[in-house]
Amino acid sequence: MDNQEIIYLDHAAATPMDGRVLSDMQPYFCDLFFNPSSPYAPAVGVRKSYEEARHRLASAIGAKPSEIILTAGATESINLAFTSVDHGHAVTSNIEHASVLECAKQHDHTLVSADKYGYISAQAIKQAIKPDTQLVSISLANNELGTIQPIREIAEIVKNERLRRLQNSVNTPIYFHCDASQGVGQIDVNVSRLGIDMLTLNAGKIYGPKHVGLLWVSSHVELRPLIVGGGQERNLRSGTENVSGVIGFAKALELVCDKRTFETKRLEGLRDYLQSKFVQAFPDMIVSGHPKYRLSGHLHVSFPGLDGERLVFLLENRGVLITTGSACAANKNTRSHVLTAIGLQDFEADGSIRITLGHLSNENNVKRAAEIIIEVVRQEYERVAR
Amino acid sequence: MDNQEIIYLDHAAATPMDGRVLSDMQPYFCDLFFNPSSPYAPAVGVRKSYEEARHRLASAIGAKPSEIILTAGATESINLAFTSVDHGHAVTSNIEHASVLECAKQHDHTLVSADKYGYISAQAIKQAIKPDTQLVSISLANNELGTIQPIREIAEIVKNERLRRLQNSVNTPIYFHCDASQGVGQIDVNVSRLGIDMLTLNAGKIYGPKHVGLLWVSSHVELRPLIVGGGQERNLRSGTENVSGVIGFAKALELVCDKRTFETKRLEGLRDYLQSKFVQAFPDMIVSGHPKYRLSGHLHVSFPGLDGERLVFLLENRGVLITTGSACAANKNTRSHVLTAIGLQDFEADGSIRITLGHLSNENNVKRAAEIIIEVVRQEYERVAR
Repeated sequence: MDNQEIIYLDHAAATPMDGRVLSDMQPYFCDLFFNPSSPYAPAVGVRKSYEEARHRLASAIGAKPSEIILTAGATESINLAFTSVDHGHAVTSNIEHASVLECAKQHDHTLVSADKYGYISAQAIKQAIKPDTQLVSISLANNELGTIQPIREIAEIVKNERLRRLQNSVNTPIYFHCDASQGVGQIDVNVSRLGIDMLTLNAGKIYGPKHVGLLWVSSHVELRPLIVGGGQERNLRSGTENVSGVIGFAKALELVCDKRTFETKRLEGLRDYLQSKFVQAFPDMIVSGHPKYRLSGHLHVSFPGLDGERLVFLLENRGVLITTGSACAANKNTRSHVLTAIGLQDFEADGSIRITLGHLSNENNVKRAAEIIIEVVRQEYERVAR
Repeated sequence: MDNQEIIYLDHAAATPMDGRVLSDMQPYFCDLFFNPSSPYAPAVGVRKSYEEARHRLASAIGAKPSEIILTAGATESINLAFTSVDHGHAVTSNIEHASVLECAKQHDHTLVSADKYGYISAQAIKQAIKPDTQLVSISLANNELGTIQPIREIAEIVKNERLRRLQNSVNTPIYFHCDASQGVGQIDVNVSRLGIDMLTLNAGKIYGPKHVGLLWVSSHVELRPLIVGGGQERNLRSGTENVSGVIGFAKALELVCDKRTFETKRLEGLRDYLQSKFVQAFPDMIVSGHPKYRLSGHLHVSFPGLDGERLVFLLENRGVLITTGSACAANKNTRSHVLTAIGLQDFEADGSIRITLGHLSNENNVKRAAEIIIEVVRQEYERVAR
């Protein structure tokens, strides 16, 4: 890539740790290294900092600290949420992340179809709920398209079903889990306002440390541990606590929440600029994702007839880092299940790229990226036409 | 604790991260933050470093890289090892760590009794194996007493049982898992030489990052994942990889292996000094753990009639940090199951303290600790006698 500036446009895949996050973590590596379960004062101090971090995480999402289970990332949180299904049925969508889909596969389940915008209607969820449905799991926002789901409406559906069962003396529980790994920095995730029962968050997607996550679990939800042992995290996640990681997570969540309104507007402006430039240059281009309910930093576009993987490679040679889809799918050389689900034809899906803006994006590099992308796509169209 | 120097004598509970470990991790926090599954060159470089770390971990224990499953700590590794039990029976001992005991409880199991030294005989394991036994799990060294177990002999027993089944056309598999979280810095853990099928290691106990561990799994062992999703770690542990953590783990393991012989001798000298000073001062004191097969930095002693928790508190006031047992048990105000198992009477168990030496120990502070501990214990005996 020579000496050119790298323009990172893949914030949905990974985010750099914020310097302020790292600086809060630093003391816990070599100095305040004590086991938080040890009895002496320095260890008790470490326990206190750890529990304070739990309070701060809870406070950022309007939850009680005792309802926060700290985990080693979103995938683990999602797997833990699915332990609420006990021989029952689960409802999720056909555009969920692999972690949700793989968990659903372990149970009787229904995949609700998203519409062409990647939007999941609350009515479709309602129709999929069966008498033995115990869990509905829908992500706050789709990681490939950026489409934001009607979480409150779905929560209302699940609540009404719970009430109906109660009135009919049916005691099969039903819960709603929302994976908010994508979108927490751009959407308010106050758990009471959302009306959900469980929430997954991932530090590694919000400029915090990787392999650190949480599952918020409303106190009425019954889970069983995936990992047993010393009984940490209310017996739901044993293992010596990741003190530095959790302290970094708390800082990261506070930082993204603090500047959420500002950052959402800023990224929306940059994204809309990119989109309008592309639309202008390539009238045949398809913009996927919901026109209205979409993460502000997300732009998913398809250039029918082109090869998205070639575009990724050519753009990388020009210093622009993007992907064709999510990092997990990208690694497997398979067509994205999300694009198939929203009805893109193969020649459209294959010409797709995903651009996700974030902290590293600014007016200068987005403007420069627009020029490079347009130039590369134009050259590719010319090459293909030859 | 005023301004006095803190003397940390609890290395079995937690270890400070080695500066060289942290320095190897540092680039991956804010700069090389890419998702190792992303397609562009900087991410491919991160993937390469991650896989190199896996190679280095494998090489340190004489294993193949493809047999290393990276996890978020020893407890998770142990839980994963127990997925090899499929409706069968498990054999472990009555002095194992809570993580092993809790895993065993999820299955039909037999707890083999340790002797008064906390030593588990291979013969006792042999007698506990039943036709449907699928897993034997014994720790390399006991975390409270430091007693080192006859892992090769037990491995031989398990191998013979496997051979016997093969010869009788019985196809119930049987594996041997060894948790080497304690002792890897002091004992050779070459997996072929040990003759085991699975090995757990924990970065947080060897001056590496917390919440990072591995399970080495010989290629003939079949496990099922606890955490499903994107299919990372050969489908056995999904979730975006902890790149910085694993790179730190590799460095930490290399460092402790490199200076193993030297450090073992050094700690043994310091420990034996402490022990002889105590024995001289308190003839009634009980030294627990095996007289010969014991971790070099471990010293477990009981002062019959005294209160171990009071000693911990009084010593902390003098700057000396120790515990009454393992950090996990210490937090629960219950008598250690290990001390009960080896036959200590309550008045002996209650007067116990555990001293574990490590990198922070040196001649000066161990000498000073000996003086302080002897002084405090003497004062306590005088107080109790009054």
